[in-house]
Amino acid sequence: MVAELLQIFHHYAYEAAAFLAGADAGVRVLVYLILILAGAKLGAELFERIGQPAVLGELIAGVILGNLTLINGHWDFFEPLRATVLTDHAAIGIDMLAKIGIILLLFEVGLESSVSDMRRVGISSFLVATIGVIVPFVLGYFVSTLFVTKVPPEILAVSPGFSVHNIHIFIGATLCATSVGITARVFKDMGRIQMPEARIVLGAAVIDDVLGLIILATVSAMISSAETGAGLSFFEIAKLTLIAIGFLAGALIVGTYLVPRLTKIAAKFRTQGLMLITAVLICFGLSALASEAGLAPIVGAFAAGLILEEIHFKEFGPNAGIRSLIQPVTTIFVPIFFVLMGIQVRLESFVMPSIIGISAGLILAAIIGKQACGLFVREKGVDRMTIGLGMIPRGEVGLIFASIGKGLGVVNDELFSAVVIMVIVTTFVTPPLLKWSVARAEKRSRQMKESDL
Amino acid sequence: MVAELLQIFHHYAYEAAAFLAGADAGVRVLVYLILILAGAKLGAELFERIGQPAVLGELIAGVILGNLTLINGHWDFFEPLRATVLTDHAAIGIDMLAKIGIILLLFEVGLESSVSDMRRVGISSFLVATIGVIVPFVLGYFVSTLFVTKVPPEILAVSPGFSVHNIHIFIGATLCATSVGITARVFKDMGRIQMPEARIVLGAAVIDDVLGLIILATVSAMISSAETGAGLSFFEIAKLTLIAIGFLAGALIVGTYLVPRLTKIAAKFRTQGLMLITAVLICFGLSALASEAGLAPIVGAFAAGLILEEIHFKEFGPNAGIRSLIQPVTTIFVPIFFVLMGIQVRLESFVMPSIIGISAGLILAAIIGKQACGLFVREKGVDRMTIGLGMIPRGEVGLIFASIGKGLGVVNDELFSAVVIMVIVTTFVTPPLLKWSVARAEKRSRQMKESDL
Repeated sequence: MVAELLQIFHHYAYEAAAFLAGADAGVRVLVYLILILAGAKLGAELFERIGQPAVLGELIAGVILGNLTLINGHWDFFEPLRATVLTDHAAIGIDMLAKIGIILLLFEVGLESSVSDMRRVGISSFLVATIGVIVPFVLGYFVSTLFVTKVPPEILAVSPGFSVHNIHIFIGATLCATSVGITARVFKDMGRIQMPEARIVLGAAVIDDVLGLIILATVSAMISSAETGAGLSFFEIAKLTLIAIGFLAGALIVGTYLVPRLTKIAAKFRTQGLMLITAVLICFGLSALASEAGLAPIVGAFAAGLILEEIHFKEFGPNAGIRSLIQPVTTIFVPIFFVLMGIQVRLESFVMPSIIGISAGLILAAIIGKQACGLFVREKGVDRMTIGLGMIPRGEVGLIFASIGKGLGVVNDELFSAVVIMVIVTTFVTPPLLKWSVARAEKRSRQMKESDL
Repeated sequence: MVAELLQIFHHYAYEAAAFLAGADAGVRVLVYLILILAGAKLGAELFERIGQPAVLGELIAGVILGNLTLINGHWDFFEPLRATVLTDHAAIGIDMLAKIGIILLLFEVGLESSVSDMRRVGISSFLVATIGVIVPFVLGYFVSTLFVTKVPPEILAVSPGFSVHNIHIFIGATLCATSVGITARVFKDMGRIQMPEARIVLGAAVIDDVLGLIILATVSAMISSAETGAGLSFFEIAKLTLIAIGFLAGALIVGTYLVPRLTKIAAKFRTQGLMLITAVLICFGLSALASEAGLAPIVGAFAAGLILEEIHFKEFGPNAGIRSLIQPVTTIFVPIFFVLMGIQVRLESFVMPSIIGISAGLILAAIIGKQACGLFVREKGVDRMTIGLGMIPRGEVGLIFASIGKGLGVVNDELFSAVVIMVIVTTFVTPPLLKWSVARAEKRSRQMKESDL
């Protein structure tokens, strides 16, 4: 009976898969979008209910959708999205939507912080951020040297002429950036967003994002120039770092001057939707400029968000709110990126001991690397462990690193899978660890006060 | 001096074009989007200021962008978007965004009407709509037989094995549907949205849209089956018409039952953005279903919009408004479609006398065809000429017909250009004609009242 039912199910699963695979690209884009968005929201809901961040649910929904083919070989509907070089029109469309999604996400993150916020975060945040970038990078590089050399060369060698050294650097770089969103969310959910530890960690996470983007710019440029065969001297690395910092600083200075003038002109237009279009054009414009300057487009998108403030749009009327206008757009676009990252994880990679080794090593490096942060806090009475734990989650920036590395040919499918698993695990362990640590710190501080009395 | 400046300008224009053509697909998508959205808004603004509909400005902005190469052979940046078969990744991405744009537009149009609205429009609207579909179709077919046969076969023959008969049918079909949006906008701008002529025309335009979608479904299916060599009997055409009507009716009946239950479940979710995602999923789901039933995806999107009412989302809270959430999304997506339609117009086609002939013939057929409508109004004291003139503008549905026909291989680049020019001209002439006609009718009715006294 069960066997018969399974066979009937198997038959229909096969039929459905064959039917979908045969549909034209326009229909498959719609079906991809339906499955991706429905999966994202189901995953987000499930994870929020068990006290985990929504983004984790979206990633894992993607992992499940992409790996359905392991359960039933016919469910390979998502295979075109997992190809190293995309050829299917529907897959190219979805990939484009995901790329626009991540640009809009970084724009939104930028909108939520401002240049003056960045100036306000204290010296502690700056130290925490810097240490939190350097130590994981070094540990990641070390893990990569330990394990990557054990991966069979025919699996590792994705692009000819690349030195293994570049892989180590890229893997190290994926470990740098703390995800602002996830940390903020956990502190907010606990009603502890105002405690000094939260302030320091959130400040650090913002600086962290910027440092991460600079590292990404430098590392990508290094690898692109390595591709052409030219070695990179220390001088050249310093030059690239200066370009990255120069772009951000230049965009902020020129932008702060130009944007109010631009929005003032735009406000004189009568046609509808101009506030949103102006904001999106500034975002896309800086993204394209960043890309042409050899940086990742998201660096420009983040800078665009930093420059734009609600005040620039006050001429559009009293109810003008650029964040509330951009939100419906990101609601649709952003989950596509996270689910697609999950879809591209190849669970079958984890039968290789070396890949399991790298994943475990990366997770440990990611967690331990950030624990050094707490040691450099100067304020007294601050719980150092809470700060170290708060810095653990890696999110969008790590994933962007991995996907850019995949595009450059330094990160192959297996390493990409290992990085995504690292992002998933670090994000997964943070909320319970942080809740425990905050409770412990508050209990201790109560006990100290009692013993003082 | 002038010659030198021109040469310098020419030099930089060449450099810019070469630079853009060499950029990678990710950057080019951003640059395409920037040029398309900026062009759309500049065009919309300009046309609104001279009292013309914004959509016309978007179409003409597209025509200018796409035909820049005629001014300067090096400005061929938009050529990848004009290819009959798209191969460039950036072009595939933009095409996908435009397709999603038109689906979301029809969804929004559907949201603005409801099933009960459709029932309320009177018998006059129904007669006006039916006549306004049949007469232009017949005239368009006739124009096509007159001119298409004069087009050199090597230009006309886009797909082998197609009978010219199919081209006539498709050209006739592009003339059927009045654009609700443009007519409504003109009456609204004049403060005459409540006059009986406006009510009848707007009611007719809504029915017209549905009739147009049914015709599109039938015609596309006819041509697809003609492709396989099978002739279509009258019986089969009737069957296809019934499928189209059946899909719409079925979607409305099943949807009206299912949607409130679906939104009730969705309202129980805690994760963010679920109202918008639910609406978008219903829209994409019905679009994919329509497509699989052999209809155009927009038929499903329109049905989804008709089914969804604000009341279904009341459980999401008092401020829930699905239209205000979908608007920022359509603000970005929809202009991409109209500008892309303009970009694909090849102005160089208009050196061929036969193409000029077809365009002029189509424009005349489009305008004269709708003048028959006024004759069938039953209400007394209604100005028949105002009704005929109000039905003139063709818009999105005509363009969708043309672009689907292009995809099917019945409408070649030259015929496509002729149809877009027809849409532009009919939209362009309506506002001044309608303003004149309304003023004339009101003056006459005042004179009649005075002579009664």
